[in-house]
Amino acid sequence: MGKKISMAVIRRLPKYHRYLKELLDKDRKRISSKELSSIIGFTASQIRQDLNNFGGFGQQGYGYNVEELYAEIGKILGLNMDYNTVIIGAGNLGQAIANYSGFEKSGFNIKGLFDINPRLIGLKIRDLEIRDIENLEKFVLENDIEIGVICTPKEKAQEIADVLIRSNIKGIWNFAPVDLTIEDEDIVIENVHLTESLFTLSYLLNEKNK
Amino acid sequence: MGKKISMAVIRRLPKYHRYLKELLDKDRKRISSKELSSIIGFTASQIRQDLNNFGGFGQQGYGYNVEELYAEIGKILGLNMDYNTVIIGAGNLGQAIANYSGFEKSGFNIKGLFDINPRLIGLKIRDLEIRDIENLEKFVLENDIEIGVICTPKEKAQEIADVLIRSNIKGIWNFAPVDLTIEDEDIVIENVHLTESLFTLSYLLNEKNK
Repeated sequence: MGKKISMAVIRRLPKYHRYLKELLDKDRKRISSKELSSIIGFTASQIRQDLNNFGGFGQQGYGYNVEELYAEIGKILGLNMDYNTVIIGAGNLGQAIANYSGFEKSGFNIKGLFDINPRLIGLKIRDLEIRDIENLEKFVLENDIEIGVICTPKEKAQEIADVLIRSNIKGIWNFAPVDLTIEDEDIVIENVHLTESLFTLSYLLNEKNK
Repeated sequence: MGKKISMAVIRRLPKYHRYLKELLDKDRKRISSKELSSIIGFTASQIRQDLNNFGGFGQQGYGYNVEELYAEIGKILGLNMDYNTVIIGAGNLGQAIANYSGFEKSGFNIKGLFDINPRLIGLKIRDLEIRDIENLEKFVLENDIEIGVICTPKEKAQEIADVLIRSNIKGIWNFAPVDLTIEDEDIVIENVHLTESLFTLSYLLNEKNK
């Protein structure tokens, strides 16, 4: 592709993907950018611009073929591939992610679940045994793990990230409320900072009630 | 205040708050926008601009008083107040949020936890009994609940949102992978779409490996 796509566009792609899936589930064959706009809440011109970044897909007077566009955006998002994934931290959040079947359906195969707590090690979540975090490095190396999901307390997160980096991880999905230091620019980090989202809510609540 | 602050600025405020807390924990008294910039990763001019939206706080040649700025940003975020909160959906994710002590420390007091599953109703998470979702509307009305956290499957989320709206909720923190329809513009919604975050990660992973 070559061209650098802005993060704002990239972050809108999963939303397109989700809405197109809903249309597909309702057996919709095609949709105009205008109608897509009314459903998804971006302007029609925004939608056309976004999709033009990847070659367009729409046809004048026809609109978009729903199935085709869904598949294309899936491919752009890398959802036509599988990702070997481990979760580190098997508390409630780690278990919530391990239990969410939607992730496996999208190709994120959870191969291992790790914790430091001896009371958790050996327990099973779905068919997955919780393993001792001591074995994380070896496991990641030996099982071609590409994504590590960090669900530990913030005090442990950097240490875990360092282990993952040493074992050639490609991407980290970080739920710990801390910004990880990753020297290697080839490793992708995506943060979910729940507290920041909650504080945004409280800001907006107070603004409304002023 | 009157002036409308952009969402981009608002979403950076919790990050300032988090980094200032870390500085405060290390007993830092003051910091220049330049040093703050090197820690937080925004440019010094971005930081000055952001904070100028709220009246500045910095002093030429001195920088920012860490404690003061932390307190001020906390106030702007509404963290000097308490919020009565309920969680709907007591699965792993709902329990993870109920168990996270950081939210209570910030003033989000979890008053009730609700589920539809008879096997969960009556169980206790910390000191909180899981209640029957049938009682949600009455509970929210009678206990001055301001924030509802939706941790249900997506099929149930709109129905729960409708109940919350009927019971005069002020804000909804939505974890269900669906965009809720809320007619009342005074109600604030903040979404956490985990799948969108994960798909952004897979996009970036593939872009790196091209």
